[in-house]
Amino acid sequence: MTLKGKLTGDNVLLEKNAIEELHNKSYYGRPKGDNLEVSLTESAFLIYMEKIRVEFEGKEIDFEDFFLKASSLLKNFELFYIVYKDMRERGYYVQPGVTGFRVYPRGGHPGKTPAEFFIFVTSERIPLLLSQLRTHLETVENLKKRLVLAIVDEESDITYYEVKKITLKGTYKLILGKKLSTAILLEDRVMVWNPDASLALQKDGFYGKPMDEGHLQLSLIESCYLLKKGILDIENKNKEVLDFDSFSKSASDIESNFMVKYSVYEKLRNEGLVPKTGFKFGTHFRVYKNIEKIEKIEKNDDKIKLPHSDYLVHAIEEDHVFSLQQLSRAVRLANSVRKEMVFGTVDSHVDFFIIGRMRL
Amino acid sequence: MTLKGKLTGDNVLLEKNAIEELHNKSYYGRPKGDNLEVSLTESAFLIYMEKIRVEFEGKEIDFEDFFLKASSLLKNFELFYIVYKDMRERGYYVQPGVTGFRVYPRGGHPGKTPAEFFIFVTSERIPLLLSQLRTHLETVENLKKRLVLAIVDEESDITYYEVKKITLKGTYKLILGKKLSTAILLEDRVMVWNPDASLALQKDGFYGKPMDEGHLQLSLIESCYLLKKGILDIENKNKEVLDFDSFSKSASDIESNFMVKYSVYEKLRNEGLVPKTGFKFGTHFRVYKNIEKIEKIEKNDDKIKLPHSDYLVHAIEEDHVFSLQQLSRAVRLANSVRKEMVFGTVDSHVDFFIIGRMRL
Repeated sequence: MTLKGKLTGDNVLLEKNAIEELHNKSYYGRPKGDNLEVSLTESAFLIYMEKIRVEFEGKEIDFEDFFLKASSLLKNFELFYIVYKDMRERGYYVQPGVTGFRVYPRGGHPGKTPAEFFIFVTSERIPLLLSQLRTHLETVENLKKRLVLAIVDEESDITYYEVKKITLKGTYKLILGKKLSTAILLEDRVMVWNPDASLALQKDGFYGKPMDEGHLQLSLIESCYLLKKGILDIENKNKEVLDFDSFSKSASDIESNFMVKYSVYEKLRNEGLVPKTGFKFGTHFRVYKNIEKIEKIEKNDDKIKLPHSDYLVHAIEEDHVFSLQQLSRAVRLANSVRKEMVFGTVDSHVDFFIIGRMRL
Repeated sequence: MTLKGKLTGDNVLLEKNAIEELHNKSYYGRPKGDNLEVSLTESAFLIYMEKIRVEFEGKEIDFEDFFLKASSLLKNFELFYIVYKDMRERGYYVQPGVTGFRVYPRGGHPGKTPAEFFIFVTSERIPLLLSQLRTHLETVENLKKRLVLAIVDEESDITYYEVKKITLKGTYKLILGKKLSTAILLEDRVMVWNPDASLALQKDGFYGKPMDEGHLQLSLIESCYLLKKGILDIENKNKEVLDFDSFSKSASDIESNFMVKYSVYEKLRNEGLVPKTGFKFGTHFRVYKNIEKIEKIEKNDDKIKLPHSDYLVHAIEEDHVFSLQQLSRAVRLANSVRKEMVFGTVDSHVDFFIIGRMRL
C-alpha cells in the first residue's frame, strides 16, 4: 500500500494510517496530531522504496524531483541520504537528527531499547576540528552512546569510524633511579659515551639506539625526559650544562612542536608505557603496553628486540584540525599493521582517544 | 696495523702507507700526493674500527672528541656517519660526496664497476622540496645511477627509499563514444538519473557508484572528464548547462586543488588506466592498470567488483614540499596493501614518479 503525504517546509506530513504502517511497525517519523511527520531523508528513502507518494504544491513529485528539492532545502542532504540508506539496508533502525542519526542496536528499536550509536555524518572534503569532535564525544558519552563518524568520500562510499576516549596504562616500572652519566647534545640528537650508562639505559629503560658498542644515541624527547627525571645530565658542545628549560628550548628550536610531542611522551612514560619513534609509520610514536625488564642482554648484541607494539600515538594540540584524508591514512595504516591509532591531545593535561575503522 | 694521520681543515691526511692499506684494498679516501686524504665521515669510521689514529694540533684525539669536532665542522655529520657506517657494515663500498654517497653494487668497487646508487642523506626533520628531489633525480639519472633517499629518524634509525620516474600505461580502451545523457550537479557530486546511461557508464567505463537501481553518483572529477570527452552533459540545479570551464570553476570552489587532481586523473585515463578514489588509503587515487570491459553485469547487482588496484597516486604541484613523516606514512601504507606509491606532478604536463621502500 502506498501512503500519501505532502512536502511542507522541511518535512513531509503523511496521512493518518502512516502512523500504524510506518511508525509503529518500522519506526519512521514522529506522530504529529493525526499525521506522521517524516524528515526529508526518510521521505526520499520511502519514495524510493515505493512506500509513499509525495505532493508538493498540489502536484505529485517523483524521486528525482524530490531528491533535487531536498538537496536545496537541507545542507548535506546527499550525504545524509547515502548514510541513512546504507544503515537502513543493513537492517538498523535509525532516527534522523540535526547533525546525524541515532541508531538502535541490532534487534533493538525505539521504545524497546535505547539507541546505541550516534552517527555523525560528514564528507571527506570537510575538515574536522578537534574541538568539534570533543563536543560530539562529550554529548554522546553523557547519553551513554557510542560515537561513530560516517565519512562519505567523493565517490559516495562510506567509511565508518568509532571514536572513543581511552586511558592508557602499561606495566613498565622505572627502575633507573640514580644519576647515570652526562650526555652531550649534538646537532639534533644526544650521545651517551659511557658504556655502562649506555647499557643501563637500553636494558632497563628501552631508551636510545646504540651507535656502536658502548655508545648510545638518544632522541631529543628521550633525553629531555631522562634529564627531567634526574637520570641524565646533559651538556652542549661547549660543555655547558643544560637544565630542563634550556634543553627544551634548544629542542623546540630544532623541532617547533617539540613540547607538544614531549607532553604526550612524558604522560605515556609516566603511565608505564614505552614509546619509541613512530617514524616508519608516519606518526609520532609507536607504543608498547607490556614491557618488562629484559633480563639478559649480550654485550655484543647491539639490538634489543622489542615485541609487537600496540598503539600508534600522534600528539596534537587543542586547535588541531583533522584532514579526513590524513585521518583515513593514519587509521588504515595502524590497522594494517595490527595497531590501534591513538591521538594524544595536549592542553593543561594530556588526554587520549582512539579512532578505529568500524564494521557495522 | 694502526695508521697515523692529521686533522687539517675538513679532512684527515693519512701517512703514505695508508694508500696501499686503506685505499687500494678497501677504497677509502683519495690519494693526494704522498698522502691519503679521507673525509671526516670516513675518518670517524676508521678511528672507530681502530684502523687509524688522528692528531689535531699535535695531540691525538679519541673517537669521542673526533666525533664532536667533526660534528662542529660538517653540517649533518651525525646523519652522514650513521648512514655511512650502516652501508659499510652491509658490505658496500661507499664514496662520500657533498650531499650524500656514491655506492657501488655488491661485488663491485671503484675502478672495477661504476657506482650503482647515489644516496641522498637527510633527516626526518628536514622538509623535502619536490624541486630538490627533481634536481637529484635528473642528476642521478644523467649519470645512469639509481637515487636512494636515506632518511634518519629521531632515534637514528634509517629508512631507505628508492625514487624513480615512471611511465604509467594501462589497457583500458574508452569505448563510450556518443553522448549518453544529461547529469545534474548537486551539492558536491553529480547524479545520473537515466538507467541506461548509468549502466553504460559503470559497465563500460567503471565510472561512478550506483546510489540505487538505475541511479548513478559520479564524483566531480569523473563528471568533469566525461563532460570534456563529450560523453555527458551536465546541468546545475537550475537546469543551466555547464561547459568545461564553468563546471571546473564550480568544482574548484568546492575543492581548491581540484584542477591539480583533475590533471592527473585525465592523464591516467588518457593513458588507459582506471583511477578511482583513494580516500580509504588517504590518497587521491587508487589506480587499476589492466582493466578490460566487464562483459556481463546483472541489472540487480549494483556492485561491480574491480580487481586489486596497482597504484596509489597522489597529485602534487610543482612547489610541493614533502613532510618526510607524511611520505613515510604514504609509502608504508601503499606497501602494506601491496600497491606502489606514485606521485603525479602537475606543471605544464603531468609526470609520475614512484617512491618505494628499499631493502639494501
